[in-house]
Order: sequence, then structure tokens, then C-alpha cells
Amino acid sequence: MTINRQWLLANRPVGMVGPHNFNYAETPIPVLSSGEVLVKNLFLSFDPAQRNWMVDRKAYLPPVAIGEPMRAGSVGQVMDSQHPEYVVGDLVQTTGYWQDYVVAAPGEGPMGLIKLPSGVSPEMMLSVLGITGLTAYFGLLEIGQPKAGETVLVSGAAGSTGSIVGQIAKIKGCRVVGIAGGPDKCKWLTETVGFDAVIDYKNEDVNAQISHHCPDKWDVFFDNVGGPILEAALDHMNLRARAVMCGSISAYNAATPLPGPSNLSNLTINRARMEGFVILDYMPRAMEAIQDLMAWVSSGDLVYQVDLQEGFDNIPATLQRLYTGQNLGKQLLKID
Amino acid sequence: MTINRQWLLANRPVGMVGPHNFNYAETPIPVLSSGEVLVKNLFLSFDPAQRNWMVDRKAYLPPVAIGEPMRAGSVGQVMDSQHPEYVVGDLVQTTGYWQDYVVAAPGEGPMGLIKLPSGVSPEMMLSVLGITGLTAYFGLLEIGQPKAGETVLVSGAAGSTGSIVGQIAKIKGCRVVGIAGGPDKCKWLTETVGFDAVIDYKNEDVNAQISHHCPDKWDVFFDNVGGPILEAALDHMNLRARAVMCGSISAYNAATPLPGPSNLSNLTINRARMEGFVILDYMPRAMEAIQDLMAWVSSGDLVYQVDLQEGFDNIPATLQRLYTGQNLGKQLLKID
Repeated sequence: MTINRQWLLANRPVGMVGPHNFNYAETPIPVLSSGEVLVKNLFLSFDPAQRNWMVDRKAYLPPVAIGEPMRAGSVGQVMDSQHPEYVVGDLVQTTGYWQDYVVAAPGEGPMGLIKLPSGVSPEMMLSVLGITGLTAYFGLLEIGQPKAGETVLVSGAAGSTGSIVGQIAKIKGCRVVGIAGGPDKCKWLTETVGFDAVIDYKNEDVNAQISHHCPDKWDVFFDNVGGPILEAALDHMNLRARAVMCGSISAYNAATPLPGPSNLSNLTINRARMEGFVILDYMPRAMEAIQDLMAWVSSGDLVYQVDLQEGFDNIPATLQRLYTGQNLGKQLLKID
Repeated sequence: MTINRQWLLANRPVGMVGPHNFNYAETPIPVLSSGEVLVKNLFLSFDPAQRNWMVDRKAYLPPVAIGEPMRAGSVGQVMDSQHPEYVVGDLVQTTGYWQDYVVAAPGEGPMGLIKLPSGVSPEMMLSVLGITGLTAYFGLLEIGQPKAGETVLVSGAAGSTGSIVGQIAKIKGCRVVGIAGGPDKCKWLTETVGFDAVIDYKNEDVNAQISHHCPDKWDVFFDNVGGPILEAALDHMNLRARAVMCGSISAYNAATPLPGPSNLSNLTINRARMEGFVILDYMPRAMEAIQDLMAWVSSGDLVYQVDLQEGFDNIPATLQRLYTGQNLGKQLLKID
């Protein structure tokens, strides 16, 4: 191959993101400067926050520009290196964008250029040991501050972050209740992942079921979803409860802003807090999390699930799977 | 007088509270048991939270029962005492309810039975040194954690709590911006109280004016109001900002729940938090606050304003003043 296939952002999405928001393009394979590394992307990571990067709004990363390749995390292989610490054949994690080849350098871009530890597969690196696992780890432990014996409620529980949040909470001695969509996801969470109870928001009354499954209310709510599920959750908080505002995927594809929860005054009555975080702030402490996560995977206390799509052509359609709830576990795509 | 006049809760309000929610009644003056004190109420305190005590909803205090006197803080005079530490003529703060006479005892009821310090007037005790001042003090300093040089935004700024919050923030070296309704309140806040800037929500675009008056955004938002003002404020938070959820007076008289802010995801992007509190939790530390507040009043750094109504017959109508924005400063009523 001598060409670099790309998917460029064609326009800013209004409503549900999909293939119509991207244009296919081909460019020459980029040429390296000193200190740089040429990486061939093998696996792409799909993350709910990508929808937010496509709109022209100030956030923790600048928006993707129209006509530029879509930003995405990736694992790839070093094809050429002008940097002494990287050699051809190394497997690395970086910000690869939606393209075959990326020029990367350590310390540059949101994710830098990280060699995969020995024995760690690309799928593992992009899920439980990657942004997903770190988000679950630091969001739950640093913002949520769960204590043994407390109840932890998780929305988007069958998602990559949510399923890891629940397992870390179990490891820390908490009772864990999940909210997910559909019987397959719910069955997976209770039977394989080890949640104490799961609420199927597509088929059950979420508010009533939170009340039922959290007889002592919740102490930590890890929210990936926002919207009506957040509102239902806020009716069942314990005194001094903590709501971890990780994401609000239910709103990302709304064409106009959706109303927020009508019951925020429960925060006052219950002396409770809602707090947001951005995982990039914790990257200097990533090794703390990775060591714990690897140990828990090795001991069998932590399982992870990858939803693997294939093919460069399927990249834009795969992103949509996150927002329609089709994925079970971490959404990845193998390029070839 | 040998009778005890009362205003009883007649029904649970739907929509704006008013005289139609109360019934006038007369009962005998109660008889004391050992350890009790008979207090004749002289001044009643009116507080936004009273509207919440009238509905049948679990909160930090049980709802007022239908047919019972409306709960309220008061300052009164001891008329008879079966307790060795109180003598006839003592001025005391207690939970007096809407009636002439109350039987009180130290350590009982939400506010116990506190003798007014020498030189402290009933008006001062029920405003800057009472629940209002303590709410401002602990809410701002403990939950908001303002640091010198930061910007503090206050809604309901001309209310009794809001105006004290702003002044404490100034004492702590912050830039203070208020939001209040109407030119008179705004003028009072800038010219007399010392706010750096005030936004008139009845006549100005709150969102645009927050942007204008908070060029470095806000670090602490002390919210007494909720609703659209909260939503506007959430668009202008700084990184690691703290929103103190004191109250949401804009929603208290809504017949049906009002939608919440559509932009809670700003908490995530900005690594920010919203946190509620209930002042009763801080009563054991009340003396810390009272010492500081008295010193600031003495030095002239802290001014307070009382809106004094008169007459037992006017009690129900006076409560409504809080929710229609008629009061300037702490709403009190002198019974006779």
C-alpha cells in the first residue's frame, strides 16, 4: 500500500451522527521528521465523547476541523521510526485518527505514543487498560469515593466503562446495581460480569426498579447516560451521595438541548454532590490504574468485553453503534 | 390575653402559596410541664424553605401536618418557665410556629431554645445571626470554598442569604457578582452592600450579562433560585468550579416539576461540582459563624437589611412576599 485512506469530517452533525457526516479520501503516506514515528493503525477505539468532538463547541479538546480526519484512539504498529525509543514492529497506542497511517511522537497529542506492555493485546490495551479502564477507575474511586458496604448505581452499565465501574465497585466491597438496555445486556451483566442486580431501561420502569433494587438508596451513581435515567436516579440518592458525571450519551445526538432533571433540589435535601471529571487530567497517574487493572484481570476479578467490527469502510457506521446501543462492551474496529 | 391565636395549615398548596392555604384558629394558652418554657412570639421569620415544609414529601424535616400550626422560626419573650436556665422576660430564639404562644425546651425542635446574646436585637438574631447568616456563612465557606481572587456569583442576591453571601465573599477577597430582580434591589446591592456588579434578571439578558460581568467566569456560584438562572450560570463556570445548591425558590411554587438545566454536561467538561447542604447540619458549629458575623457587623464590613411587616392577620400574606420577590432583605413580621 502506498496510499493513506482517510475518513474526513464532512460537516458538523445535527441529530444522530452517521456516515453522511464523513467523506472518504486518499492521501500519500506522510513523511517523517526527526523524533517522529510512522504508525500503521490496526485497531480503532470508538468512544462516546467522539460525538462531542465533532461540534464546534469549546471543551477539553478542540473540535475536529471540517475536512480533517476524524480523531480517534488507536493501536497500531510502527512501520518507520526517526525516534530512538521506537523500532519497526513495535505495537503502540496513540491518537491514530480514522486513517491507515499516522505520524506520532511521544508526549504529543491527547494520548501520546505508548508502547504496549508485553503480553497485552491491542484489544486489551484499547479497553480495560486504555481510556475506558482509566475512566472507570479514576472516575469511580477519585470522584465517587465508594466505601465498602455502600450501594453503587451505574448507568450505561453494559458499556465498556460502565461494566468496569461495576466490577471495581464489587472489588471494593460495594453492592452494585446496573442500568442497561435489553435482556441480553442485562443477563450478561448479572451472569458474567457479576452485578448484584440490573435494570432493563427498555422494558422496565427505571424509577420503580431503582427503588426496588436499592433498598438503602445509592451512595454513588456513576452516570454515563444523563437524561431521564439521571432524573430517575436523583430520586433515590442517599444522604451525602455522590453522582459521578462521566457522560450523558443520551443527549449527544440531540439536535436541540434536552431539558435537564427536574429534581436537582434532591442534592440540597440530601447534602449530595454531582461532580464531573475528564480522564485526560489523570493521565500522569495512569500507571496506578493499569497496575491494579492488570492484577484484577489476571486474578479473574475483572472481565472485559470487546465488540469488534471489521473493515475500513465500516468505520463511520461503527461510530453510530455507540449511540444506538448496539454495542456490548468496548466498541473497537479492526481495520483490515 | 388568654387565648393563643394560630394560623393552621388548611391544605397542601398547589401552585403559589397564599392565605387560602391557612385557617385561623384560637386555642387556650398551653400549660407547662417540668423543663419547659412558655414563650410569647414577638417576631416571626419567613424563609423560602417553608413552602417545602407544606408539601407531603420526605425532606430534612417532616412536613407540617394539615390542621397543625405552620412551622416558623421566631424570637419571643419568656412568659413562664419550668426550666432553671430561663426566667420570665428572657428574649429567646426558637421554633415558634405561627401562633402567639409556644411551649419550648432547650435542645428540642429544629432550633432548640437559644437566649439572645446581650445587645443583639430580635431583628439581628433572626437575620444576620440566625439561620440566614449561618446559611450564607457555612454554605459559602464550607461548600463553595472560595479563594481570594476568585469570582463568586450569587443568585437571589438581594435576599437575606444572598446579600450576606456576597459580603462574606468580598471579605474573603473575591470579586462578587449578584443576580437580583429590579433596579431598586440592584442599586442597593452595588451602592450599599458593595457587590462589584449586579445583573437585573427582570430587565437584562442574564446569560449575556454573566459573560460580561464575569470575564474570568465564576469559581463559586451560590444558587438560591434554580431554574433558568441556574441554567444560564452553568454556561459560564470556570474549571473546577463549585455550585452551592442552597435553594431553588423559582421552583417552589410550581404546580408541576419544572425542567432542569439542559447543560449539566458543563460539569463534566469543566471538572466542576454542584453540591447541596442543609444548614441544620452545621448548628453544632453555629458559634464559629456567629462570632465572625458579629465582628463583621461591628466593623461595618457586613450590613444587613430587614423587611419588617406587622400584624398577626398579615402572617399568611407575608409568606407569599418571598416567592413574588417583594421583600428586600430578610423577611420578618412583628406580631403586634
